[in-house]
Amino acid sequence: MMSLEDMSREGTWFIEFNTPFSYHIRGIKRVLYNGVTKYQRVAIVEFEDLGKALVLDGKTQSTVYDEFIYHESLVHPAMIAHPNPRRVLILGGGEGATAREVLKHRSVEEVVMVDIDDDVIKISRDYLPEMHQGAFDNPKLRLIIGDGRKFIEESKDKFDIIILDLTDPLEGGPSYLLYTVEFYTMIKDRLNDNGLMVTQATSTFYALYTFAAIYRTVASVFPVARAYHTYVPSFDSTWGFVIGSKGLDPVSLTPEEIDSRIKNRINGELRYYEGDIHRVLFTLPRHIRALLENKSIKPATDKNPTFLPA
Amino acid sequence: MMSLEDMSREGTWFIEFNTPFSYHIRGIKRVLYNGVTKYQRVAIVEFEDLGKALVLDGKTQSTVYDEFIYHESLVHPAMIAHPNPRRVLILGGGEGATAREVLKHRSVEEVVMVDIDDDVIKISRDYLPEMHQGAFDNPKLRLIIGDGRKFIEESKDKFDIIILDLTDPLEGGPSYLLYTVEFYTMIKDRLNDNGLMVTQATSTFYALYTFAAIYRTVASVFPVARAYHTYVPSFDSTWGFVIGSKGLDPVSLTPEEIDSRIKNRINGELRYYEGDIHRVLFTLPRHIRALLENKSIKPATDKNPTFLPA
Amino acid sequence: MMSLEDMSREGTWFIEFNTPFSYHIRGIKRVLYNGVTKYQRVAIVEFEDLGKALVLDGKTQSTVYDEFIYHESLVHPAMIAHPNPRRVLILGGGEGATAREVLKHRSVEEVVMVDIDDDVIKISRDYLPEMHQGAFDNPKLRLIIGDGRKFIEESKDKFDIIILDLTDPLEGGPSYLLYTVEFYTMIKDRLNDNGLMVTQATSTFYALYTFAAIYRTVASVFPVARAYHTYVPSFDSTWGFVIGSKGLDPVSLTPEEIDSRIKNRINGELRYYEGDIHRVLFTLPRHIRALLENKSIKPATDKNPTFLPA
Amino acid sequence: MMSLEDMSREGTWFIEFNTPFSYHIRGIKRVLYNGVTKYQRVAIVEFEDLGKALVLDGKTQSTVYDEFIYHESLVHPAMIAHPNPRRVLILGGGEGATAREVLKHRSVEEVVMVDIDDDVIKISRDYLPEMHQGAFDNPKLRLIIGDGRKFIEESKDKFDIIILDLTDPLEGGPSYLLYTVEFYTMIKDRLNDNGLMVTQATSTFYALYTFAAIYRTVASVFPVARAYHTYVPSFDSTWGFVIGSKGLDPVSLTPEEIDSRIKNRINGELRYYEGDIHRVLFTLPRHIRALLENKSIKPATDKNPTFLPA
Repeated sequence: MMSLEDMSREGTWFIEFNTPFSYHIRGIKRVLYNGVTKYQRVAIVEFEDLGKALVLDGKTQSTVYDEFIYHESLVHPAMIAHPNPRRVLILGGGEGATAREVLKHRSVEEVVMVDIDDDVIKISRDYLPEMHQGAFDNPKLRLIIGDGRKFIEESKDKFDIIILDLTDPLEGGPSYLLYTVEFYTMIKDRLNDNGLMVTQATSTFYALYTFAAIYRTVASVFPVARAYHTYVPSFDSTWGFVIGSKGLDPVSLTPEEIDSRIKNRINGELRYYEGDIHRVLFTLPRHIRALLENKSIKPATDKNPTFLPA
Repeated sequence: MMSLEDMSREGTWFIEFNTPFSYHIRGIKRVLYNGVTKYQRVAIVEFEDLGKALVLDGKTQSTVYDEFIYHESLVHPAMIAHPNPRRVLILGGGEGATAREVLKHRSVEEVVMVDIDDDVIKISRDYLPEMHQGAFDNPKLRLIIGDGRKFIEESKDKFDIIILDLTDPLEGGPSYLLYTVEFYTMIKDRLNDNGLMVTQATSTFYALYTFAAIYRTVASVFPVARAYHTYVPSFDSTWGFVIGSKGLDPVSLTPEEIDSRIKNRINGELRYYEGDIHRVLFTLPRHIRALLENKSIKPATDKNPTFLPA
Repeated sequence: MMSLEDMSREGTWFIEFNTPFSYHIRGIKRVLYNGVTKYQRVAIVEFEDLGKALVLDGKTQSTVYDEFIYHESLVHPAMIAHPNPRRVLILGGGEGATAREVLKHRSVEEVVMVDIDDDVIKISRDYLPEMHQGAFDNPKLRLIIGDGRKFIEESKDKFDIIILDLTDPLEGGPSYLLYTVEFYTMIKDRLNDNGLMVTQATSTFYALYTFAAIYRTVASVFPVARAYHTYVPSFDSTWGFVIGSKGLDPVSLTPEEIDSRIKNRINGELRYYEGDIHRVLFTLPRHIRALLENKSIKPATDKNPTFLPA
Repeated sequence: MMSLEDMSREGTWFIEFNTPFSYHIRGIKRVLYNGVTKYQRVAIVEFEDLGKALVLDGKTQSTVYDEFIYHESLVHPAMIAHPNPRRVLILGGGEGATAREVLKHRSVEEVVMVDIDDDVIKISRDYLPEMHQGAFDNPKLRLIIGDGRKFIEESKDKFDIIILDLTDPLEGGPSYLLYTVEFYTMIKDRLNDNGLMVTQATSTFYALYTFAAIYRTVASVFPVARAYHTYVPSFDSTWGFVIGSKGLDPVSLTPEEIDSRIKNRINGELRYYEGDIHRVLFTLPRHIRALLENKSIKPATDKNPTFLPA
């Protein structure tokens, strides 16, 4: 049994303010890095229970303990639904784990990764080798430091898959204009035929309304839209994702087809994603399905964006 | 945007000490009841985000916001797997929501509920009508105040379904001897042919090893054992359950069969459980499956019980 | 040694947000009352370590453990400095403990107490008899429910002593206009010759600059101004007070004179205030004295008030 | 006004578990060092409000903001009471600030400092130059790495002043045998005629009973014993000290005598200690005086030591 004395020895803690009325306190073993970049506050900490973690502006982004759940769920459903993804664009994804998962697909010829914060990438390279696992040195990766929305506005490039690995849409934050009808319309334009995009879509517990708003925004732009989620322990919550597709539907695949595609197309081991889990991801409970169908939730636009509750 | 001043006005908070290094703080709107019974500390609070809740010894047991997820997941998979459950035994379940779910099954003729703490039942009757919804007044319910293990040791009754809605196995706590080989052996003896038991089996994140130990204990006693889990927001975690069965296998049912049985056998609406969700419940990710198969985790016995980490 | 399990049983806690970067968490034994009046959120809680307490808008106002330190320090230095205080005005002081201390002085013929929040007084009468000790039933007390500043603006009454037992000057809060040159000028006008006023003047640790601003504001209005402070455990801090006087100087009294006046003029026992403690109260350390003399801190006015840091 | 978003950006916090029911959370700007020595967990952090700090086993020892209050109060009352302190022994005091204050006295010829933890001294030298201010390089300082009690048992040296700058007497901790009759008897034996010892004596709020026990232990060994305290913001509390003297009485000095001795005998500036503050230090409120005289509190012995409450 843990005593007060043992706990108090800890000293240093991390507090994640999930909402104004819900905070999570975690013991920190070590703080490996703590600084402020041009864009945000960055910390690399080692949690007692979750191992090393990247924290941006006080929000846990990835932990060694369970980042595989988040990153495999973000990357593979869209990639596997595509018959032959060769060119992939990632917006965000600074710690390199999204690129790592994309690069496991043998079909991939080029990954363009656009992240605004050079320093986060440098810090991740130095402190989080468990996460990028060398992805930054892969010759297929082209890294561009710049603003994601501006890149989309100016680029003439086309991609098979576009992955939006962004921070949550916070009022006044850097990302909320990457969750709007205008933005998704440009994204669609940057996709090849058969192309799919996927975006992280925040907590389906703490911010369920925002999740629904992102889904409804994507669905207003793409012919096929699919919302899914999975439990990520370090986020204290189930976490949502939304796919927008020009035609292919990830839900139409059977577990067997998925397992077969994984076997034929992916190098190395997956730790979470597989055929049965794909089906679990896309099975949402009734109270979430009801909200997704709620027509009073309007698509977010540049003028009327959606924000996390606060 | 919430200001510090708004937050500080709150004043009263609940802290759940999940582990020595992980605490969750929640805003409390009202404390409706706070007292100590012969067995435990009982509070009825109203959380800002989760509504009214029953808290025993500082652990959130049920909240109005999401108790339906926990209670439907606990009760229906075993009940639905049985062709015609008529006599049901519940150990624990003081706030009456487990009985409420059982009583939705038209086949049920008698529910025996054994709970050690008279006061918790009285307090729940008074303060938590949203949870029991009149279950305590149902003529099919027979309520016995007493020790669950002792009841099992002394009873000659037989049941189709036995539901163990207990507190976690804490060292020195009141429940750890209801998670052992000896106890499950007696439970099996109290089941009719075709009978199934189900037990809550703690967090599959905070106490995954204990979950595996409970599974392996049940599997050492029953011919069929099935572990499953689902995300319960108010527990900050996915929550585990284990079924022990004398023969019937809940995993063999298709979603369609389940939906058909629900339609034919259940009165009123379910809010969470349905055929597709049944399949989700029993699909565990690979790292959890691996632990369930880990032979170094020995079945818990009265002499060597399993405990929550602390 | 306290274990995690013992602590977690607690469940309900109080968090005082002292500043954006400093929060104090205390165990709550019971919540006796929790509600919202026309003006503020009111809670009566029983702390594990400090006993019953009045909490307004999430700020601890008084605890059974140490309110005697605060209230004796607020009331007696000004009262004792006056040769014969007969008419006393209290603004605020809802829980009745300030009136209780004033009424210990045999010379007092009438105490007028003006508090804006009828409900706080009712709740204190019901739940905090240890604090008011019958003061509300004393025939010398005249209780007026109303706005303190408005009372001062409209009253023609004169007093020997005016005691300002107010909440802190928070931006947007109800009290900040009771800490300005304009207000103190009216207060001076309501004082008889030889009259003194005293105001609570916030924490000399968490809000030292505000303490200095209050002192400098009083000193710009009154010929004699004296700042003092004492440690109040439940405020986590030393707590400041400022006296404004038309001529009499509390610092000129020796400990012996004070003890003699206490003996001759006060009914009942004091628990904290005495001659030696009087001298301690008015002995401020050098870094506080330096700030009090800092001419860049301007007196607060209705147009440029002083606020707590936030 | 601080918003939730601003606060949450902070990320890293320090929690001091004062008692099982009282915790203080502080924002951390940077963690400069975090490690474990042979004896304890050591952290150098920079608090948002208190600046750089030394934290041992989760307890704040010294902060740049207010260590001068603690260290001047520990060192100077005993030193000033002595007519000509030449040889001074310090047990503990790893960050070097106690030695720094002792070395301000021109009469001092040798300071022997015995600290058990070499690493704490190295870390303090590197990270806390604001605290030691070069004391470790002063030729009058003789630093001995070793156990304080053992040094006292084996040493034949004599001193004019002995300063016990120890961690609190925690059950199972390294210091509790340095607060006993047996230990103080050896200390008295190591003092020259006219010699004085002083010990830190824990919080007079959180651990008032322990403070009284330390006083009564010293008083059972020395002909003159004097208890005093002062408010130290970073300890959230008034902090106690006890002097044991072979004859000289620090309370007999007038403020004027003290100011004169400071002027004649001390190099450099003091920031807190002066004649008037000396008098404040030794003026304890009535409820503390009553406990000091409480004969049911027995002197601590090696067999029946006194511990902090837990």
